Amino acid sequence: MYPILTVGSVAFDSMKTPLGEASRVVGGAATYFSVAASFFTDVRLVAVVGDDFTEDQMRVFADRRIDLTGLQRVPGETFRWKGEYSCDFNTRETIYTHLNVFDAFQPVLPDSYRPTPFVFLANIHPALQSDVLTQVHQPQFVAADTMNYWIEGTPNDLRAVLGRVDALIINDEEARQLSGESNLVKAARTIQQMGPELLVIKRGEHGVLMTRDRGFFAVPALPLETVIDPTGAGDTFAGGFMGYLASAGEINDAVMTRAIIAGSALASFAVEDFGLERLLRLTPDALQDRFSEFKRLTHFEAL
Amino acid sequence: MYPILTVGSVAFDSMKTPLGEASRVVGGAATYFSVAASFFTDVRLVAVVGDDFTEDQMRVFADRRIDLTGLQRVPGETFRWKGEYSCDFNTRETIYTHLNVFDAFQPVLPDSYRPTPFVFLANIHPALQSDVLTQVHQPQFVAADTMNYWIEGTPNDLRAVLGRVDALIINDEEARQLSGESNLVKAARTIQQMGPELLVIKRGEHGVLMTRDRGFFAVPALPLETVIDPTGAGDTFAGGFMGYLASAGEINDAVMTRAIIAGSALASFAVEDFGLERLLRLTPDALQDRFSEFKRLTHFEAL
Repeated sequence: MYPILTVGSVAFDSMKTPLGEASRVVGGAATYFSVAASFFTDVRLVAVVGDDFTEDQMRVFADRRIDLTGLQRVPGETFRWKGEYSCDFNTRETIYTHLNVFDAFQPVLPDSYRPTPFVFLANIHPALQSDVLTQVHQPQFVAADTMNYWIEGTPNDLRAVLGRVDALIINDEEARQLSGESNLVKAARTIQQMGPELLVIKRGEHGVLMTRDRGFFAVPALPLETVIDPTGAGDTFAGGFMGYLASAGEINDAVMTRAIIAGSALASFAVEDFGLERLLRLTPDALQDRFSEFKRLTHFEAL
Repeated sequence: MYPILTVGSVAFDSMKTPLGEASRVVGGAATYFSVAASFFTDVRLVAVVGDDFTEDQMRVFADRRIDLTGLQRVPGETFRWKGEYSCDFNTRETIYTHLNVFDAFQPVLPDSYRPTPFVFLANIHPALQSDVLTQVHQPQFVAADTMNYWIEGTPNDLRAVLGRVDALIINDEEARQLSGESNLVKAARTIQQMGPELLVIKRGEHGVLMTRDRGFFAVPALPLETVIDPTGAGDTFAGGFMGYLASAGEINDAVMTRAIIAGSALASFAVEDFGLERLLRLTPDALQDRFSEFKRLTHFEAL
């Protein structure tokens, strides 16, 4: 079992969904990732919060395998985001993004973090992703996320970091935009040429697609009767996926496919309540039951 | 192994896709269904063509297990349809629909068809679907398709036939429209209340979702590098699904899940060329290989 390092945002999120709203709850990509990954392994968090981030809010990380040595606390306000989802949850409008202390964030790895073998670079400026990577001593497996903003705005910085990662974990729209290909198979091959040997494509309510030596592995999302809030589902997936990989001690096709299920199972919980709520009260037994649900959802006997 | 009866359209299709176009090729829901189902069992076709439907065009049915006793040939022109697909294949515009001889179609079952245990009512007026059902002697398993046109235009006729079928095979948009629910789990439960115990939801490039005793079975579509023409993929899926069920001799959960794979595999071939082309040159060995591809695409070891 290996520890995993992640760098990304810790934020205050407000969201309005067809089933209600929540205001100023703790979120951010690195938060969802860390909480999810900590179900499987030790997590080392690199992020920044403002002095408005209270001890009470810090409790989302408490009693979990999350090392906060790399969490900077600086004067100013914490990153704030607000979004509103459409009736069918398929589109989301950003109401505001206030970077606040995140605007000047310079990730600095504590010495104790430098030898971490597994690294996840959450969605931040690709130049910062590269900078973090440079601070890690010989990482074994590095995955990154990104978004349309960096694909359009900082293509060169993005290309530079893509050349240094083992895996890219993005959604289908981003895969199409980054590759310029509408067909996902072609999109995947094009992105692999940019550096990452492994591409994991998140398809929201349609599940996940992963490249492998020959062809793909794919899993549908678990059909859920009640979806309350999809915020953070993608980062939760990444946390479950990477956390499981790091915990497995070796990387092979069977481990990778199970890691996809681990991520999918955690993401299926994440959407069942606002923000981190469902993940924070998730028990290992409930998680194990959901692994079985995914097996039942997808299993068939060979024809 | 049981034979299967289907009623629906046989048509001349013209289509324009991002990768080319084809003009006046043999298509229609009942055609795709019959060719697909005939890979597994004997098919009894009930449909109508005009006197412009040549012997040469009739060859799509030749040397297959398709009984044409119920195929009426009447004076006039065959049903004609033309459609154009968007760049990403996700939307399709109908350029024209000329019902022609299909407009006055009155399905009449030959006596030899009446005892058929498996029945598929393709997408035609729900009153005609009911009429056909009345002509069958004690069918064991009946499935139907429908479309937005009937959901909006003839809701009472549709409700009447839904009360008489075992299964409904429709796409996700139709499921949402018919149920008035945007969540597919709720949509499925609502539609089951209307009659069909089994609901199979086709999600295009995202695969298929099927209700079962507890929860769902889901399979992603096979990621394909080249999609030429999606016309008929849904009816091909239905043909593979129903044909496999009828050939299995019994209906249980394991058979149903394999039938979903059979349908998905056939549909994955259908889109690889225009119209029926790929299905017409499909060999049993290639089909068997694709079953294995679906297993590899989706299989993971339990966590």
